[in-house]
Amino acid sequence: MNNPLFKLMTLEESLQVFRNSFDYKNYLALHQEKIELISASKRVLAEDIIAKENIPGFNRATVDGYALKAGDTFGASDGLPAYLEVIGEIRMSEIPSLLVCSGQTARISTGGMLPEGADAVVMLEYTEQIDETMIEANRPVALWENVLRADEDIKKGEILLKKGQLLRPQDIGLLAALGWGTVLVYKKPGVAIISTGDEIVPVHSQPKPGQVRDINLYALGASVEEIGAIPHYRDIIPDDELALEKELRKCIESDEIDMVLISGGSSVGSRDYTLKVLNHLGSPGVLVHGLALKPGKPTIISLNNQKPIIGLPGHPVSTLIVFESIVKKILSDLKGEILPLGLNRTVEALLENNIASEGGREEFIRVILKKKDGKFWAVPVLGKSGMISTLAKADGYIVIGLNQEGLYQGDLVTVYLF
Amino acid sequence: MNNPLFKLMTLEESLQVFRNSFDYKNYLALHQEKIELISASKRVLAEDIIAKENIPGFNRATVDGYALKAGDTFGASDGLPAYLEVIGEIRMSEIPSLLVCSGQTARISTGGMLPEGADAVVMLEYTEQIDETMIEANRPVALWENVLRADEDIKKGEILLKKGQLLRPQDIGLLAALGWGTVLVYKKPGVAIISTGDEIVPVHSQPKPGQVRDINLYALGASVEEIGAIPHYRDIIPDDELALEKELRKCIESDEIDMVLISGGSSVGSRDYTLKVLNHLGSPGVLVHGLALKPGKPTIISLNNQKPIIGLPGHPVSTLIVFESIVKKILSDLKGEILPLGLNRTVEALLENNIASEGGREEFIRVILKKKDGKFWAVPVLGKSGMISTLAKADGYIVIGLNQEGLYQGDLVTVYLF
Repeated sequence: MNNPLFKLMTLEESLQVFRNSFDYKNYLALHQEKIELISASKRVLAEDIIAKENIPGFNRATVDGYALKAGDTFGASDGLPAYLEVIGEIRMSEIPSLLVCSGQTARISTGGMLPEGADAVVMLEYTEQIDETMIEANRPVALWENVLRADEDIKKGEILLKKGQLLRPQDIGLLAALGWGTVLVYKKPGVAIISTGDEIVPVHSQPKPGQVRDINLYALGASVEEIGAIPHYRDIIPDDELALEKELRKCIESDEIDMVLISGGSSVGSRDYTLKVLNHLGSPGVLVHGLALKPGKPTIISLNNQKPIIGLPGHPVSTLIVFESIVKKILSDLKGEILPLGLNRTVEALLENNIASEGGREEFIRVILKKKDGKFWAVPVLGKSGMISTLAKADGYIVIGLNQEGLYQGDLVTVYLF
Repeated sequence: MNNPLFKLMTLEESLQVFRNSFDYKNYLALHQEKIELISASKRVLAEDIIAKENIPGFNRATVDGYALKAGDTFGASDGLPAYLEVIGEIRMSEIPSLLVCSGQTARISTGGMLPEGADAVVMLEYTEQIDETMIEANRPVALWENVLRADEDIKKGEILLKKGQLLRPQDIGLLAALGWGTVLVYKKPGVAIISTGDEIVPVHSQPKPGQVRDINLYALGASVEEIGAIPHYRDIIPDDELALEKELRKCIESDEIDMVLISGGSSVGSRDYTLKVLNHLGSPGVLVHGLALKPGKPTIISLNNQKPIIGLPGHPVSTLIVFESIVKKILSDLKGEILPLGLNRTVEALLENNIASEGGREEFIRVILKKKDGKFWAVPVLGKSGMISTLAKADGYIVIGLNQEGLYQGDLVTVYLF
């Protein structure tokens, strides 16, 4: 059993310690599934997508008009149009049997396949029909103008999407274009959510004085769902060492559960036995005990038989900030997701008040966004971290860095939106 | 039947015309359901949430320490600590039977209920145990310090969440705190997705030259799902007036379908009969025919017996831009959603190249984001709008306004992320 002397760790250090201990390669190899393209939105690719064919695969008209040889229109104008013999019409979805020779043309619609001999399309608007077999074109077209060439969209052999990419609607569209009716993705991580504490009662019951309803089960469940994982809602566990150990053992043994989030354990003794239990449920045990983060200091990160178990503070606000600042990153790793630019939903805003901070830890300040004179202003939400209402009022949060001693009114800040 | 002379409309005008014709009040009144809180994440509230009780409902300790009268600690310091008699310990989730008088104190844990007489908590760290019945406190505490007062988080009667609000994890947490085990939300709109065109073949088949796989069904389906609506995938309809009419009639009559998206109809005649069909399926018929938008001009917006039917261009890129620029807004209205600040996922970036634009229409330019010297740069993605690969390469888009004639290299632009 590993039992170093714990000191507060920064978010960065904690993530590093976790990543050094977790066997991602093996985890991701075992967590893949082939699914129908129709349900692949927001899933993460477990394979590179290499084009098996050219797209569109044929020279395709991009406008309604006449297919012809570009050379026949050189110098054409209203005063001196090019006269062309109409030899037929290209029907959609058919291979044209026509051959367009110099001086000839064929009627074509957007999406139609260019007939042999044609190397451009003149738009309908720039033509005039003389009679049934003759038109005039009054504009010149360049070689391949108004045509999407056979391999112009996608070339056979090209890597189009990469392993680790989150599939957006347009990526789904691209896979459809390529004929990927099913696709290999990583499984959604299953996350057990356990609220602990003698004072916690289910949402449907009326709390007696001293009791509170189970907020974290719901708030964490929604957060887990939002990030694209599957919440497993577990019963409330009282402040009892054996009950906690039994529940955690079940979670570790379950194939459906890939991560456990425990919140609460607010009585004085419970933190101690939580550490004890986590340290003998499987190696390496507790990796992080205490974060240099406000709110969110009393966080525990443990790894037991390759299952991450995170002990979150009981206060809903602290719990959600810890989720946002570190659990989300670990879950994103379990999803197999490789973020392209580390993009979050952010807005730049000006700070409305001075904020003091102690330094030596990261501080997450909840803010409301206001628009004044076309600019966003971030207004800090005051209130203790036990207040769930402050989080519901907030539009997002700003971060005061480890070595910053505060921020000034008018400072440009990045607001991470909830 | 309404049949004005159609001219290109701006996005703003189109949305206005649609909103003037659609009976939102009746629609939203008929589209509500009561659901379990556990499945309410990302749903839209159909009722104001008014607190039925104070939260926490009792004076709650926010730290581990000793409950006492603040006055007893005034002036306390390391050199001159306050001596206090320990009269017991507050157990979690119990109403304390103790009465704390001046000179007395009781051990309390975070979340515990303050005993009668106590009006502050001194943190454990600032106390020292003398013997079993005596501690010293070496810091003063202010009145109600380290205490969350009974109505400090939420006051009975306060409006906490508003009708039309999208429920985020912390809102779900707030509802749990208040005992809302079920919640009234608007129904998810059902959206039928129909691809039309003789040249379109299902994703699993190998297209012959001149044919293309059904991209839009998948790309639109994923977009509809992402916005929180339910896609209904319909079969491909050939370029055939009667088949289109029959399919649309079914959609209009279905209770599950609240909106129809038709894409394609690329043959020359199909646009005409689509207009004809839409104009006799129910009043008022076609409202918008042609958008001042690039790409996306050949868009039709119709309303038939209060069902919005949108005709989208066949090109996947144009289709997704039309979805992004107008369908999303209409769907968001059908969801009952009132956006607080019109916030989208955006990033400010510097433009890498000059872009020319014609003016008189809005132009959506796809861009890739690059990070250079800590700044984001937006690099326009070139390529015709028939190319699905350009959209998969892009991270987002920028908009050139109606009256702008282009943008210059180095201009600060807002990138809307996909």
